[in-house]
Amino acid sequence: MNYPPSIQKLIDLFSKFPTVGPKTAARFVFYLLKSDKKEIDELIYSLSNLKTNIKSCFFCFKSFELTASSKNNGFCKICSDASRDKSQLCIIEKETDLLAIEKIKKYRGRYFILDGIVKKQGGKETRIKELKKRIKNNPEIKEIIIATNSTTEGEATALYLERELKFFNKKITRLARGLPMGGELEYADNETLKNALEGRK
Amino acid sequence: MNYPPSIQKLIDLFSKFPTVGPKTAARFVFYLLKSDKKEIDELIYSLSNLKTNIKSCFFCFKSFELTASSKNNGFCKICSDASRDKSQLCIIEKETDLLAIEKIKKYRGRYFILDGIVKKQGGKETRIKELKKRIKNNPEIKEIIIATNSTTEGEATALYLERELKFFNKKITRLARGLPMGGELEYADNETLKNALEGRK
Amino acid sequence: MNYPPSIQKLIDLFSKFPTVGPKTAARFVFYLLKSDKKEIDELIYSLSNLKTNIKSCFFCFKSFELTASSKNNGFCKICSDASRDKSQLCIIEKETDLLAIEKIKKYRGRYFILDGIVKKQGGKETRIKELKKRIKNNPEIKEIIIATNSTTEGEATALYLERELKFFNKKITRLARGLPMGGELEYADNETLKNALEGRK
Amino acid sequence: MNYPPSIQKLIDLFSKFPTVGPKTAARFVFYLLKSDKKEIDELIYSLSNLKTNIKSCFFCFKSFELTASSKNNGFCKICSDASRDKSQLCIIEKETDLLAIEKIKKYRGRYFILDGIVKKQGGKETRIKELKKRIKNNPEIKEIIIATNSTTEGEATALYLERELKFFNKKITRLARGLPMGGELEYADNETLKNALEGRK
Repeated sequence: MNYPPSIQKLIDLFSKFPTVGPKTAARFVFYLLKSDKKEIDELIYSLSNLKTNIKSCFFCFKSFELTASSKNNGFCKICSDASRDKSQLCIIEKETDLLAIEKIKKYRGRYFILDGIVKKQGGKETRIKELKKRIKNNPEIKEIIIATNSTTEGEATALYLERELKFFNKKITRLARGLPMGGELEYADNETLKNALEGRK
Repeated sequence: MNYPPSIQKLIDLFSKFPTVGPKTAARFVFYLLKSDKKEIDELIYSLSNLKTNIKSCFFCFKSFELTASSKNNGFCKICSDASRDKSQLCIIEKETDLLAIEKIKKYRGRYFILDGIVKKQGGKETRIKELKKRIKNNPEIKEIIIATNSTTEGEATALYLERELKFFNKKITRLARGLPMGGELEYADNETLKNALEGRK
Repeated sequence: MNYPPSIQKLIDLFSKFPTVGPKTAARFVFYLLKSDKKEIDELIYSLSNLKTNIKSCFFCFKSFELTASSKNNGFCKICSDASRDKSQLCIIEKETDLLAIEKIKKYRGRYFILDGIVKKQGGKETRIKELKKRIKNNPEIKEIIIATNSTTEGEATALYLERELKFFNKKITRLARGLPMGGELEYADNETLKNALEGRK
Repeated sequence: MNYPPSIQKLIDLFSKFPTVGPKTAARFVFYLLKSDKKEIDELIYSLSNLKTNIKSCFFCFKSFELTASSKNNGFCKICSDASRDKSQLCIIEKETDLLAIEKIKKYRGRYFILDGIVKKQGGKETRIKELKKRIKNNPEIKEIIIATNSTTEGEATALYLERELKFFNKKITRLARGLPMGGELEYADNETLKNALEGRK
């Protein structure tokens, strides 16, 4: 039993979405088939506008809405905010990580979205060149905070950044690694426990 | 920290999709922001065609592609298939349930998609009226198989159908309820065990 | 870092308990080390009495307490209960399955604990011989209910029993297999769906 | 359906074991009922010897086996080990935490098992008095590492210890809290992210 081609095509497209498999994609399509035409039209309209209305910040690459006020500017709200501390630059892997850090309301500096991680097989498609340019052109930056994930890829990316950025003679820091909130020694993996012991203070 | 309006709007629309929460919806939008324009255009094109190309079967309401061959017909492949056994009618809640039963390749009759369940608060927006018409107009139907889910709503729907359809004097059966494959008595809930015992044969 | 021998020995013994791994076993021992001597003594006392006080029912092999009243009898409460229906015999794999069926309060016949499943490699260490003797010596038995698990081993055991017991010319039934309570067609495995369809009534 | 008293009594005793509920406790008892008498006797023997053979270290309270060589000593292997660094004292909540730290082979100092956490309702039944005595009587201790869990109770215990021990004028450190191995910013809770940011270095 196959799906009709018009349904299968949409299933294929939705299956490319992160976390979506063919079964979930099929549920999406049947949801749409049962929706009002108005709802699908809204979705189509929003999709059409996405790339036109949303721009990347000239400095940090965060996405922001193109409005009358932002038009001549090219910078996102954070980078345009005069009250943010320009001496700190926090490097994150992707935009959702930026939002995660903003949510805790403890960081007042600027960001730089690396857009990806350093792959093992050489292919470094991250914005490392742009990052170096930002650091060179903004001597007010005093501390570079490498806030990559604590995954294998994130660690590799952090080590690569440390090596590449040390020539700027800035203070380079990394997010603390150790016991997460609620973590118990008995159930912590060896690596976490090692980090917790070595990073004690 | 809020998302730009054009992003937020899409997050809201994707959040209505089944199984999708705001966090996953956000990941969808950032995925699209990073995709080629071509990919978004394909999505828009497929969405635009969906309602035009896909029709509901006149008999069972299954969705099917409108093609040159199917145009003058109005029936889905299953209902058009002369080799299917017209004496059996299997009532399912939704189209994905039909596909689940087709997959096991043991059923050769026709289906009827009820499109929903009987709600507790009266509101019965299912296709019960159409179902009765099908049974009345197709005297070749000998057995009506009620194949609703074994959930509280599915059970209520099945009981309602049994009551509503008994006047047709057809054989009415229901899917067996009991131990699922791999099920152990020790861990089965009381209701399942009761069904397994009472349905023994 | 190894545990002291007296601790390690207990860890090894507890690790043989069902569901217990070495880590949990270690927690058990440290729990005991911190307990009062009185608690450990109680445990030792109860363990010493277990095999002396608990006997297997002469008929069904269910365990029961040896008391003044049960001493001359040799039968468990269920088998001694004159109000139970002696025409039904329910065969279960193990004692906890018997308790699961008793809990739903729908079965009023007697049981027979097979104590194990039929292994693939021939070795059938179940009480099949005793079972046959019970059926032979109790002509009042009219229905034999095979209530093995719906696992691969349980299915094999059921098939084996059906073959071995058919010569007694009794009604042989099996627990219904199909959708469990709460089961949805969309997420059911093929085997369960097949059983549900074929077992419909 | 109740269990026979001798079985129920054992179920009750096993149900007090950590992580064990009545259902698992019942499985333990049925496991024992089916075991050889020899196996139960071994268990009884090991339980009887546990408290006699295992002693607490005079210094750190770690449990150790009473042997001919350790008899006149009273200290565990770690505390007896001349090569361990006597300038470091690591305070852990319980013995299994000590084993967790030993396993990573990065710590060469001594331990002190606090045996519990500081309860919210005043009742501090930990070995705080003994801990103070150890610090007072061992002036070679230079660094006190508080290695409590990163749970609410562990945090409260750590804060209490910091307050109580500051008068000794020793270096007091705590295990690093932050992203665990494999941790992603997007999924980290706010508290963990705050700790990771504030503890950066």
